[in-house]
Amino acid sequence: MALASVIGVGSTKYGKLPSTFIELVTQAATEALSDAGIGPDEIEGMYLGNFAGESFIGQNHLAAYVASALGLQGVPATRVEGACASGSLAIRQAIFAIKSGFCKRVLVIGAEKMTSLPTSGVTHVLAQASNKDLEVNAGLTFPGVFALAAQRHMYRYGTTREHLAAVAVKNHDHALLNPKAHLHKKISMEEVCGCPDMVAAPLNRYDCSLISDGASAMVLCAPELAGDYKQPIIDIIGSAQASGEFEIFASPELTSFPAARIAAEKAYEMAGVQPNDISFAEVHDCFTIAEIIATEDLGFFKPGEGGPAALAGKTRLCGSIPINPSGGLKAKGHPVGSTGVGQGVEVIYQLRGQAGERQVQDARIGLTHNIGGSGGTCTVHIYKRREQN
Amino acid sequence: MALASVIGVGSTKYGKLPSTFIELVTQAATEALSDAGIGPDEIEGMYLGNFAGESFIGQNHLAAYVASALGLQGVPATRVEGACASGSLAIRQAIFAIKSGFCKRVLVIGAEKMTSLPTSGVTHVLAQASNKDLEVNAGLTFPGVFALAAQRHMYRYGTTREHLAAVAVKNHDHALLNPKAHLHKKISMEEVCGCPDMVAAPLNRYDCSLISDGASAMVLCAPELAGDYKQPIIDIIGSAQASGEFEIFASPELTSFPAARIAAEKAYEMAGVQPNDISFAEVHDCFTIAEIIATEDLGFFKPGEGGPAALAGKTRLCGSIPINPSGGLKAKGHPVGSTGVGQGVEVIYQLRGQAGERQVQDARIGLTHNIGGSGGTCTVHIYKRREQN
Repeated sequence: MALASVIGVGSTKYGKLPSTFIELVTQAATEALSDAGIGPDEIEGMYLGNFAGESFIGQNHLAAYVASALGLQGVPATRVEGACASGSLAIRQAIFAIKSGFCKRVLVIGAEKMTSLPTSGVTHVLAQASNKDLEVNAGLTFPGVFALAAQRHMYRYGTTREHLAAVAVKNHDHALLNPKAHLHKKISMEEVCGCPDMVAAPLNRYDCSLISDGASAMVLCAPELAGDYKQPIIDIIGSAQASGEFEIFASPELTSFPAARIAAEKAYEMAGVQPNDISFAEVHDCFTIAEIIATEDLGFFKPGEGGPAALAGKTRLCGSIPINPSGGLKAKGHPVGSTGVGQGVEVIYQLRGQAGERQVQDARIGLTHNIGGSGGTCTVHIYKRREQN
Repeated sequence: MALASVIGVGSTKYGKLPSTFIELVTQAATEALSDAGIGPDEIEGMYLGNFAGESFIGQNHLAAYVASALGLQGVPATRVEGACASGSLAIRQAIFAIKSGFCKRVLVIGAEKMTSLPTSGVTHVLAQASNKDLEVNAGLTFPGVFALAAQRHMYRYGTTREHLAAVAVKNHDHALLNPKAHLHKKISMEEVCGCPDMVAAPLNRYDCSLISDGASAMVLCAPELAGDYKQPIIDIIGSAQASGEFEIFASPELTSFPAARIAAEKAYEMAGVQPNDISFAEVHDCFTIAEIIATEDLGFFKPGEGGPAALAGKTRLCGSIPINPSGGLKAKGHPVGSTGVGQGVEVIYQLRGQAGERQVQDARIGLTHNIGGSGGTCTVHIYKRREQN
């Protein structure tokens, strides 16, 4: 049964952009409203996913700021934050607002303006998603967290440098087909494996996602109203979220995010589907190892088989389960608060058959997987194209 | 009809406290769970209202942090932010989570640790709730915003220095009866009117709310389950939120917050009650003028009559419509993210008849009014004691 339906989507290009935060948001929201064929006056609620406007742009209370700029005076506007999963949490709250009967049509926006700070500043801001006292002050930032996961995955399952590289090469290839991706740069296995710019061993520069600006938006409505709008109807049939241990040292294992497994299980159950029913997925590849773990946590591959599957091409656009057709966080870009919504936007394009050169064949059911911090916040959403009568 | 029911509440003392953020949250949440007679394992969702953890304590992703610390692994935990209304937005999302059928029991926490920064730093962080480029950089911070409102209210309605002072004196008096209030200090009309410490004319030091640390918590459940718990049942019968103009210069008037009026109207309609059905209210008195405006926006008094009503004692504990029996933001304290939840906690104590020396007589229906920024985010909630069969 549909929880809510998506009737409009929009997104800025992701990248190092000259636009201000409010310009990015306005562009994405306007495109989504236009895509739905409605005006701001038909919106009854607004959610904004944003991680760190305070630090990145020196502006807080951003939902009200955005509502005011978009002409949504009178409409409830709420910012939600869950680190890199902020966008997906915004989608979830919109679903709740609709399913509870409070709202008929809700605008969801995810946005982050990151490139206003130098890279060292961005790393510091991102690190606030982990435990400041017990992790950051001990020198651990996110590249280190995921390097630990990669080392452990290699030790436990025999995952190799080439497995990680295959994820990077594939996502760069996919991004070449996505006009809105941050990077359009083909890379080779040799370049990735031989890259001398080590970030945190074994992760080098090509294993890391990007620092991007960007905004994405979706218009959701009550399922029974979806037929009133012009686009092919996409229903959200599963939405789950779980919290994990906040600190990586407290996690029972480093090769899986337990909360992602919980969220996946709940979302599958809610949607009444199995992993092998999923046509494709947008997953949280903040680092290459994270995509491998995601494909295992989601049940697409058994633990330890994610790396070999990537190397064998199973997760490519033409593979058995295409992963990150958009290019992912790795090459499409990762404007933190926007990412979860951007994943949803890609799923909508794919399920509508509007994904152009990167179209997944026979895309029927799409999944998004979005995590915050070291797996402290994990979400899974499942979308399905509604069959025409 | 009840949207959700409150089965447990808890709160720290508000004030300049030695406790860390996580200690404050743990204390409030533990008290609320104990008050409800349930353990963390019965909680199916958690919302945290927090305004500026990034700036105040250098820690973001706080909902996951708190969930992990409270033993809520597996449970969805989401931070919501709407400036000084963050706590009320958290309550609203919890209502949605319950009413949508996603959760049966939800823990709502509001918390802020502010006194880690010097006052100038706090002012800077709070100012991020208004427009940085167009207001803050022009020198306008919140005392200035509310001073403009006071000047205009005086000009338009003849509101006087004594009217403002009456609010401060009353709220200090009420706080004397609240063991958890930040300030326990009786003040006189003469002291307030003659105070030489001008902040932004006509507002002096006694017209301003406090910089406080604190956390408050509530456990909400589906209305049909409320009878299973030990406390007298309090139902939430109205919940409304509206966005106003983000910048004070864009507001159509300075003597009222249009979004507060919209939220009040919707909440009354949802609850099926009128202003004169309300037994008492906790309102957003960040400055004395704000309480006067609130009592007018909520329909307790006509525009311009809020000041005279306060001076006449109508808003005292023994008056016709007691306002801020807790002492309000002015004297109970204003740990920003906690405030909205703390208002709710006070309403619950009052409706249960557990408010001790500050008990409002015949308290049957209570209201909370919580605003963020210059009225960019406004919320109204209405609570009612369930009649026993």
